[in-house]
Amino acid sequence: MQERAEQTRRTLLEAAASLFDERGYAGTSISDIAARSGHTSGAIYFHYASKEKLALAVVEGHFATWPPLIEQYTNTATGTATATPALERLVRLSFAVARAFRDDIVVRAGARLWTERTLIAAPLPPPFVGWIDAVTEMLERARAEGDLAPHIDPERAARTVVCAFFGVHTVSEALDRRRSIEDHLADLWALLLPSLQTRPIAAELFPMARQA
Amino acid sequence: MQERAEQTRRTLLEAAASLFDERGYAGTSISDIAARSGHTSGAIYFHYASKEKLALAVVEGHFATWPPLIEQYTNTATGTATATPALERLVRLSFAVARAFRDDIVVRAGARLWTERTLIAAPLPPPFVGWIDAVTEMLERARAEGDLAPHIDPERAARTVVCAFFGVHTVSEALDRRRSIEDHLADLWALLLPSLQTRPIAAELFPMARQA
Repeated sequence: MQERAEQTRRTLLEAAASLFDERGYAGTSISDIAARSGHTSGAIYFHYASKEKLALAVVEGHFATWPPLIEQYTNTATGTATATPALERLVRLSFAVARAFRDDIVVRAGARLWTERTLIAAPLPPPFVGWIDAVTEMLERARAEGDLAPHIDPERAARTVVCAFFGVHTVSEALDRRRSIEDHLADLWALLLPSLQTRPIAAELFPMARQA
Repeated sequence: MQERAEQTRRTLLEAAASLFDERGYAGTSISDIAARSGHTSGAIYFHYASKEKLALAVVEGHFATWPPLIEQYTNTATGTATATPALERLVRLSFAVARAFRDDIVVRAGARLWTERTLIAAPLPPPFVGWIDAVTEMLERARAEGDLAPHIDPERAARTVVCAFFGVHTVSEALDRRRSIEDHLADLWALLLPSLQTRPIAAELFPMARQA
């Protein structure tokens, strides 16, 4: 029964996420979510108590996507990250995040709800700061590996990378619902990497990163 | 009397903008705007018909800020732009825009309303496209002046610059209400310019651009 309750919660969350992504917070009602999920409004109130709480669960689901993804690209003790330079892992991670923004309904909906956060009567997690910290650590690692240009300050460069990435995915959403996000991200790295690197690695890296 | 009506419209627009900026669209009521402006709710309905129309006027005011500013930095027939290289004019323009995002209440409010656009029952102007066109033209001019690196495609680079700038001002807003936006923008150009340029001009340019 516990497992079935979990399955119901997940179905409700994904139905809510797909509606929030399409119509936004204000444009989505509990009965819309019931209709899309195949469950009753009563089930929604039982599992999530309110539309605010359901929106908060979607935003938390969005934020919960990142730590395991970051771990996968930063934990040098596990198979994936071993022997791959930190700067290359950062680029690969950014493409993985871009694909999540394009393809993962909870990530997409969480991003939209975050921009609509003033409507939601529930405190949302603070954005960006965790990303800036994670990217700073990867750039510090790149410095230790001798790949970061000497004049680059890891923390300021990390903030710039996070800002620019956020702009790419937001503008991509507005221009074509993020269909071209990988092209736009490759264009961004083509301008940023030569400044970040001690030695250029950009040209041969992009095709690999996009398929990673 | 015409002039007085214009003054009233402007006062109402700025009162609405300051509230939209602070509290968002959903958090602002016609009576809040009346209280802040010192006019009656009736005056608001007379001049703007509805909260939607007032929000639309703020967003249109935001968008109307840019053409004269772009003109000032691109029209080489007038005094300001003459003899200044296009790439330098682009950097100066970006700092002027950053300051508008920090200091101009209609620009700030328009940006917030645009992120909340799904709540506003009025069609808003399409964003980014005009900016991408304007920056493309400046980069093409930089190419004609021999300042753009040969491998740079002006249109793709323009889209990247616009994306990255949008990210900088949005993240700056979330981190500290855009107080450090000029520092963040300088950090962005420090990474982008070396890739864009045939010859580096970054170092000596930033102090000038920030005071322009």
